[in-house]
Amino acid sequence: MAYLFKYDSDALMALPKHVDLFDTTLRDGAQTAGISFSVEDKKRIANRLAEFGVHWIEGGWPGASPKDDLFFEQMRERSWGRSKLVAFGSTARPGHAVEKDRGLNRLIGSGADAACIFGKSWDVHVTKALGITLEENLRLVSESVAYLKQHFDTVFFDAEHFFDGFAANERYALQVLEAAAEAGADTLVLCDTNGGSIPFPVFDVVTRVKKHLPDQALGIHAHNDCEMAVANSVAAVRAGVQQVQGTVNGVGERCGNANLMSIIPILQLKVKVDCGVSPEQLRQLSSLSQFVNEMANRLPWQHQPFVGQNAFAHKGGIHVSAIRKQRDLYEHIDPLLVGNEQRVLVSDQAGRSNILSKLQKLEPEAGLADDDPVVAEAVTRIKELEATGYAFEGADASFQLLLRRSMSRFQRHFELVRFRVYDEKRGHHEDPESEATVQVRVGGELKHAAALGNGPVNAMDRALRAALVHAYPGLEAMFLTDFKVRVLTTREATEAAVRVLIESSDGKRKWSTVGVSTDVLEAAYRALNDAIEYKLVMDGVAAPAAENR
Amino acid sequence: MAYLFKYDSDALMALPKHVDLFDTTLRDGAQTAGISFSVEDKKRIANRLAEFGVHWIEGGWPGASPKDDLFFEQMRERSWGRSKLVAFGSTARPGHAVEKDRGLNRLIGSGADAACIFGKSWDVHVTKALGITLEENLRLVSESVAYLKQHFDTVFFDAEHFFDGFAANERYALQVLEAAAEAGADTLVLCDTNGGSIPFPVFDVVTRVKKHLPDQALGIHAHNDCEMAVANSVAAVRAGVQQVQGTVNGVGERCGNANLMSIIPILQLKVKVDCGVSPEQLRQLSSLSQFVNEMANRLPWQHQPFVGQNAFAHKGGIHVSAIRKQRDLYEHIDPLLVGNEQRVLVSDQAGRSNILSKLQKLEPEAGLADDDPVVAEAVTRIKELEATGYAFEGADASFQLLLRRSMSRFQRHFELVRFRVYDEKRGHHEDPESEATVQVRVGGELKHAAALGNGPVNAMDRALRAALVHAYPGLEAMFLTDFKVRVLTTREATEAAVRVLIESSDGKRKWSTVGVSTDVLEAAYRALNDAIEYKLVMDGVAAPAAENR
Repeated sequence: MAYLFKYDSDALMALPKHVDLFDTTLRDGAQTAGISFSVEDKKRIANRLAEFGVHWIEGGWPGASPKDDLFFEQMRERSWGRSKLVAFGSTARPGHAVEKDRGLNRLIGSGADAACIFGKSWDVHVTKALGITLEENLRLVSESVAYLKQHFDTVFFDAEHFFDGFAANERYALQVLEAAAEAGADTLVLCDTNGGSIPFPVFDVVTRVKKHLPDQALGIHAHNDCEMAVANSVAAVRAGVQQVQGTVNGVGERCGNANLMSIIPILQLKVKVDCGVSPEQLRQLSSLSQFVNEMANRLPWQHQPFVGQNAFAHKGGIHVSAIRKQRDLYEHIDPLLVGNEQRVLVSDQAGRSNILSKLQKLEPEAGLADDDPVVAEAVTRIKELEATGYAFEGADASFQLLLRRSMSRFQRHFELVRFRVYDEKRGHHEDPESEATVQVRVGGELKHAAALGNGPVNAMDRALRAALVHAYPGLEAMFLTDFKVRVLTTREATEAAVRVLIESSDGKRKWSTVGVSTDVLEAAYRALNDAIEYKLVMDGVAAPAAENR
Repeated sequence: MAYLFKYDSDALMALPKHVDLFDTTLRDGAQTAGISFSVEDKKRIANRLAEFGVHWIEGGWPGASPKDDLFFEQMRERSWGRSKLVAFGSTARPGHAVEKDRGLNRLIGSGADAACIFGKSWDVHVTKALGITLEENLRLVSESVAYLKQHFDTVFFDAEHFFDGFAANERYALQVLEAAAEAGADTLVLCDTNGGSIPFPVFDVVTRVKKHLPDQALGIHAHNDCEMAVANSVAAVRAGVQQVQGTVNGVGERCGNANLMSIIPILQLKVKVDCGVSPEQLRQLSSLSQFVNEMANRLPWQHQPFVGQNAFAHKGGIHVSAIRKQRDLYEHIDPLLVGNEQRVLVSDQAGRSNILSKLQKLEPEAGLADDDPVVAEAVTRIKELEATGYAFEGADASFQLLLRRSMSRFQRHFELVRFRVYDEKRGHHEDPESEATVQVRVGGELKHAAALGNGPVNAMDRALRAALVHAYPGLEAMFLTDFKVRVLTTREATEAAVRVLIESSDGKRKWSTVGVSTDVLEAAYRALNDAIEYKLVMDGVAAPAAENR
């Protein structure tokens, strides 16, 4: 990727050799609508970030919430490598000596390795929001930083709204930086608090600041309100900042913070600036991203660059045949570098080459060739099913069962005799009642179960597993994690076929299955049936001969 | 926002006055994992894009799938303003005269206003993926463009993998562009097909191409694999391209295409380049984004810049009090410019004004004021319902009924006594059977009907209308035209709440309604109930007094 700057002559002038990573997932990221980390979550994330090798881990705002106080309390004995814990706060309140400021003293008592405080650098914020004079603000910045420097080796100053402030009153914005610098701030962090900036102006502003304070270490703190937080951060590095602040997966208020999951591989693999992340650590990137999603109880962003499930997924048939000729023809980096992998999606646009590569992954020893009849049969079967509305790109488990069938490597574990679903609602304001009965044959034996449910699909799911769990106790551990319904054609409205996509888990693995029918309950049954069969196949449970006469 | 270039002296040199918008949601966007548009969806999206004012609407690839062929067939009689329909394809296959190329002739026969074909511009792709000589590729590009120009006023050439190609073999990449230009291509679109590029190199490469072909119109087609598709597109405009290709909400293969929902407001409001979108059209941006999410049956990206639900959401007391003092202290643009709104999570202000305006539209003579208790009640009710998963964006009829209720201007036409739905499947290969019985009270009279159906929702729809049609013969003319199901939370899988969206028609009008429940059948019933009530209200059918004691 060295070509990236081949056409960018002046790019290497200001580019630093090394950039520090500053993670604020636990502070700014905790502001995200819908995210609320427990103290336990915060500890696990902090330790995981330290393991990954982030330099600075901002843990929270002492005094802002009991949760943050408890977190810092419990983090006092930590055994991290080079990672350092940072406590966040603001410049002292006006009207008293900084030594008396409760906020600052909480930082000092937090047990953190470093402090990061924000101060106003946009004149109108000082006068309108804080309601103090510009001079008073300069004094607060300078004295707050100086006081903290008596207690911390390292103090960071976040210049809030710096880019807006610089545009509105360049001279004052620079005075605020000077005040913090002269008081001993180690790094001045330029914050695009409202997220309204775009890369070229960011580059130019940072360049001007560096000219003004040539020996001062700078940082960037970007927000994603223009979908440019990553680009703005990289532009600032290109202009010479030595610290990048961001969050895992770009979580954060409004549109989020700069996404470290993209910034790290771009800096290390493309811009060739060292973030102190080793190749081994970089291969943990995808799993770090997933871990934080789990902690945040958040659906993964499947299309997320570098670490997302679809980041290296290929659908178009032309692409796939080319990929098999030469990987990097259609991949901007090797997915393994960030611990991700190439995925080949099956779809109506996909040719036999997609399916062949899937079959080869499934049965490497079979040594299948393009012209193998098994491939032809699988392709035909898939096209038939896709014509009726099946889509396998989101249903790997159903697809694998289908391939096993076409390779006659599949044995049914049970056979449906009948299901009945009853759904009743009495009166406009009454809750409905759902009941399902399921009868299946397992090895010649009839099993019959009934269950109530929160809706008919839930009732059917419960009844089906109740009917099977005695024969297959492994199903006890299995549960559904996701359930999607898609109506396929708008032609006949309520007569339209529906596609039900189900994701299941047994705690260790996750797999997804699909069912299609004009009857939403039959579609759900088919997806449930595959989900259970796949679990039994994965567990290597033998199928009773009687099912497969 | 004029300040944006205050520190970016050379930025205005190459900046064009005007940029054309080229939407490929229906072509490249249709490659997105998990998205499969029906022909009906594609038509509705295309018409909505034309309404919004996009210049070029790429509808698909004639010949690639029966779906795309049907789409172009059905789009032959369209009545758009300035928007033009584009058909996508590739340069001719090697080995025969271009006039005989089936792909090119399909484009010519498609009835589109313009053609866009891609060709290889990365030398290794020509030799390895295509397996032909570099000269042969130049001939294919030149002859394909020339042949299409005999049949289309406008032909676009997508230079596939241009940035990688330029880095690998600058001279050849430029030769490909020359070949297309000399053959008459109207715009040469530089494609970052693998999405591996970043803004500064993109700017520099585009600048070099412009120096090489000063009189040639250029375009940019970016992918989001570095989370920089928007930044790369804006960088290219800054370097002088006059066309930007992208998709609504950035849907697209892998990590997606450049997101027009961000690019449009950035260009018009910040970079000050005219995209031909009027202020009125720009205020439709958020609703266009939501509409495409509904069509794609896709969970909205709540943190999406500009148009997302949280894009202008404010937490935290400091922010809120400051916002009250001066909005733009914490907002990079006025959300109303893009049809979004400020959400102050601690107050009830949000949404109030637009609900007032809707109420005023509904009841002009009522002369409602901001402080009218009716408004407060409507706001409260809407917030309650939205908290349970209702979304009225796609369901105007349900929304109007809700407002009528809050103004006590609504009289029920019937009351549900009970519904029962039976669904049974006997054996793995048997079709299921669905039966519904519905009992309603109309003016003190009990009506009871039963119906079989193609699936339980269809059975319920038939039974409900059978029970009502004698009392309300107007329902005879009513039928459902669309039916969508969305699962709202994945937390409890099959226990999750579902939202059913129904579109109805009576031949003259179309209206849509919504229902939410953990029981998919109850959700469907609620949407059906509203659909019928709305039809009766529109027809001015009086409600029997007995229903409204």
